[in-house]
Amino acid sequence: MHLALSYIPILTWAKDYNRHILASDLIAAVIVTIMLIPQSLAYALLAGLPPEVGLYATILPLIVYAVFGSSRTLSVGPVAIASLMTAASLSDIAQQGSHDYLAAAITLAMLSGIFLLMLGVLKLGLLTNFLSHPVVSGFITASAILIAFSQFKYILGVNAEGGDAITLITSLLSSLQQINIPTIIIGLGVLLFLFSVKNSGTSFLMMFGLSKRTSQLTTKAAPVIGVLATILIVSYMSLHEQGVAIVGQIPSGLPRLAIPQFSIALIEQLAMPAIFISIIGYVESISVGKTLAAKRREKTDANQELIGLGAANIASAISGGFPVTGGFSRSVVNFDAGAVTQAASIYTAIGIAIASMLLTPVLFYLPKATLAATIIIAVVSLIDFSIVKKTWSYSKSDCFAVIITIVVTLLFGVEAGVICGVLVSIFLHLYRTTTPHIAEVGLIEGTQFFKNVRRFHVITDPHILSLRIDESLFFGNASYMEDKIYHYLFNDDQIGHVIIICSAVNEIDFSALETLKNINERLIEQGVILHLSEVKGPVLDALTNVDFIESLSGNVYVSQFEAFNDNTNSKIEYK
Amino acid sequence: MHLALSYIPILTWAKDYNRHILASDLIAAVIVTIMLIPQSLAYALLAGLPPEVGLYATILPLIVYAVFGSSRTLSVGPVAIASLMTAASLSDIAQQGSHDYLAAAITLAMLSGIFLLMLGVLKLGLLTNFLSHPVVSGFITASAILIAFSQFKYILGVNAEGGDAITLITSLLSSLQQINIPTIIIGLGVLLFLFSVKNSGTSFLMMFGLSKRTSQLTTKAAPVIGVLATILIVSYMSLHEQGVAIVGQIPSGLPRLAIPQFSIALIEQLAMPAIFISIIGYVESISVGKTLAAKRREKTDANQELIGLGAANIASAISGGFPVTGGFSRSVVNFDAGAVTQAASIYTAIGIAIASMLLTPVLFYLPKATLAATIIIAVVSLIDFSIVKKTWSYSKSDCFAVIITIVVTLLFGVEAGVICGVLVSIFLHLYRTTTPHIAEVGLIEGTQFFKNVRRFHVITDPHILSLRIDESLFFGNASYMEDKIYHYLFNDDQIGHVIIICSAVNEIDFSALETLKNINERLIEQGVILHLSEVKGPVLDALTNVDFIESLSGNVYVSQFEAFNDNTNSKIEYK
Repeated sequence: MHLALSYIPILTWAKDYNRHILASDLIAAVIVTIMLIPQSLAYALLAGLPPEVGLYATILPLIVYAVFGSSRTLSVGPVAIASLMTAASLSDIAQQGSHDYLAAAITLAMLSGIFLLMLGVLKLGLLTNFLSHPVVSGFITASAILIAFSQFKYILGVNAEGGDAITLITSLLSSLQQINIPTIIIGLGVLLFLFSVKNSGTSFLMMFGLSKRTSQLTTKAAPVIGVLATILIVSYMSLHEQGVAIVGQIPSGLPRLAIPQFSIALIEQLAMPAIFISIIGYVESISVGKTLAAKRREKTDANQELIGLGAANIASAISGGFPVTGGFSRSVVNFDAGAVTQAASIYTAIGIAIASMLLTPVLFYLPKATLAATIIIAVVSLIDFSIVKKTWSYSKSDCFAVIITIVVTLLFGVEAGVICGVLVSIFLHLYRTTTPHIAEVGLIEGTQFFKNVRRFHVITDPHILSLRIDESLFFGNASYMEDKIYHYLFNDDQIGHVIIICSAVNEIDFSALETLKNINERLIEQGVILHLSEVKGPVLDALTNVDFIESLSGNVYVSQFEAFNDNTNSKIEYK
Repeated sequence: MHLALSYIPILTWAKDYNRHILASDLIAAVIVTIMLIPQSLAYALLAGLPPEVGLYATILPLIVYAVFGSSRTLSVGPVAIASLMTAASLSDIAQQGSHDYLAAAITLAMLSGIFLLMLGVLKLGLLTNFLSHPVVSGFITASAILIAFSQFKYILGVNAEGGDAITLITSLLSSLQQINIPTIIIGLGVLLFLFSVKNSGTSFLMMFGLSKRTSQLTTKAAPVIGVLATILIVSYMSLHEQGVAIVGQIPSGLPRLAIPQFSIALIEQLAMPAIFISIIGYVESISVGKTLAAKRREKTDANQELIGLGAANIASAISGGFPVTGGFSRSVVNFDAGAVTQAASIYTAIGIAIASMLLTPVLFYLPKATLAATIIIAVVSLIDFSIVKKTWSYSKSDCFAVIITIVVTLLFGVEAGVICGVLVSIFLHLYRTTTPHIAEVGLIEGTQFFKNVRRFHVITDPHILSLRIDESLFFGNASYMEDKIYHYLFNDDQIGHVIIICSAVNEIDFSALETLKNINERLIEQGVILHLSEVKGPVLDALTNVDFIESLSGNVYVSQFEAFNDNTNSKIEYK
């Protein structure tokens, strides 16, 4: 039972479910459903898929996440960035609209699901931390810009393609003469409407006496109003005959569940993209989940979250959908609308299922420009260059990582951007750890404290070199330490004792041990004695086990003061 | 002049050159030249290249390294592992013996050279540390086994190919009926001779009254004796007409210098292999260089070494050679034979140049089996499984890395092996740093020291959670810390104060700063106050600059004792 509880979080809240929670969850579900219908259609469009696939990717994943996910209020489904990444991954593999394209999208969801599930079951959730915050922020900003550009073609009613900013813009510019006037009127109209609602909708509604929360939640229905209004306009005026691109026939009914067929070649091509989409999706999702959980002092669990998202993606694949993750805006709306448990998501899934059974005929005349406008308004709020300024004032290397990520994403597309972001993050981190702070120290007169000789006026002995290493020793920095010690010896013939102060050394790995052995032997050849001081218990135990302490030419001292005093010719005594 | 000195180490010793050094260097050069002639031919064979290419790759690189390299006694040229890696990289690109194959080898040398030079000039030498010692040891052992297997075909006189152990062995076994008897007699004969000399040659010679050093150095001529003897046997008995594979026509003369022609497609295919060969070669080389330099209290410089090796590889490419690096055995012989400066290498280059002008006709009848035997004896000494045992007793995760590297190299070849080795090293390191030690601490009665509540009997206050973080905070572990803190709060309603003890935090990066801000805000929402204690100067400065300290709900304390005492209801006072 304990195991079941730990892997199936639904069991922890289902038993306490009551009428009050039901009411709260139902209200939230209605609001989220209204918000999700246009959103699901829009993100399917962004991913290059038929609109119904957006609905399919919303239903089963919501239910499966409700069972396995650790967050109480996270809402899972298609999101903007994962949809863009899906389109980018599939662009080289098949033609948009083809059967192969859809099959590849399903494979991508399945691979993402399996990968996330594996990370979760193996408890490797921490690995996803290797995308630093600044890199993720930069990536999201750049991706949002790419998404907005990619949707302008629908607003203008032209054909334009491209996975990077320059191709997109030149493609848009070169097709400007094809602009379709009715399309642009609808597109800009919806854009203006959504923009106004977003900026002043809440205060407008509050003027009519609605509470702030009700007003805020009501504004979330704006896309649905846009959708309905433009459907009416297009169908009434038959604008689709004047070149306005519409969604057209959407098969009605529920997705058919099927275990996807896989080709090995496709898996090879999509494995890396699936990993990137998964990680980016997870990072987005967990940050939302954590924020919401912490607000109610609830718990999220990184590995359980991976399992929940993994299962949701597999569910998406089985129901013919594409990669999904926890979305920011949808989760916040769910939370603000009062959802208490994941039951709200199950009701939302039922709502979307009903919509896909009944409403699809209504959506026939829905202009693609309306969906594009919805997407643009949604992603514009993700664009945030302030991260550049913030990192600049705190850490130049973080700022560098942000700028690289933004530039590479804009110029070379999302895949290059995310690869580059991960590599730059890890690279900068590794580079920092390879050059630990190593200070030559001396005794502060009248105390037993040893401080950096460069910053303090200290007592030293020309025959003794005392070095404090401010980091655990491992393969990445062991040879830096070695070089540093040889460098001191090379420049100073008087040194007869080297004392390494290990107070900040939490671990010594095998490579560093080998390096210490080398140093010890080289120093013996040069007639220099090597001592260690202030070695932590576990480290000392490990060194003793492999007989390093025995082979050490000098001693191990509990305190640096003792180490210094034992080897200097001019003993220091305090009374 | 200082800049010139720092980039052209030859200037530091050339001015003090005198007759005594000249004599020492000349003697070393003669011995090394005799050793290198068969070795150069053999490693060209191993790399799948014509024998003269081995000589070409020895001449100019030696001279160029002498000018730019930082080690006084390192000897640069073709080595076993880089040659095997060259063969593995080129196997998919062109047929051995074809013009394209040679062109690709030259491109590989050029790319390696440029890569190493770039690392050196950008002072990124420390990056090469991300191959841990155990991984390198495992890789060398597995590669040596592959090399030995790959040479058996020449000893047996059969055709067999393969980049991994299983393919090689099955290929050898299935071609056993083609065995050529004269070849196997020559091959095993040379093998036995070299093996005996290696094991008891020194003591045998010492019986004749030679000094130990002279005996040791004399044994290094064994391959040349094997070469001469088998040339005589083959030519006298016309064994090449009985199926003994011989080296055949070698163009005599010096390499023609030419800037290689590059195709973009080839560069794309070879870029990654070039990086791997460079890094493995560099790691091998620098460890030899450091060992030799430290014996004489000389200095090596990682970045200058990269420049030296990079220039040597470019020189190899320009003279029609393949990737080179500093070799272990050749450098040790050079050192033991008394080389004092890199002038010895210049004389060696002259020796090899003379050999390639005059001796190539002599080598016509040289059996390939002799060269194969030379290679096998050379690499067998590299096979060392003791690393598995050593790492097992010290660190299981290092042991795991070794075993993975050995297994992958044997089963999937050198490229997969080295990629896997690097990834496993970095992965294990990152994984360790993502889960820093975080201890809940309490006050040891009667002192001002705070220790782990699990290990010591300490005073705590149920309203105060004191956590000591034993690592710098960065994007990789920031969310681990966050989860840990929320976990405590989730399990304990009484906590009103959280104190993070930062005595071991040397740095807080931007991601960790964001996480701290989040924690601070979440705790405020829950009515919990966040304090920091024992923050290091530079870290505190950085936090203050971005106004984090101002937004912190609690205080920053110089000592944890003060932090605890200031917030507890039952004050502790010492007189």
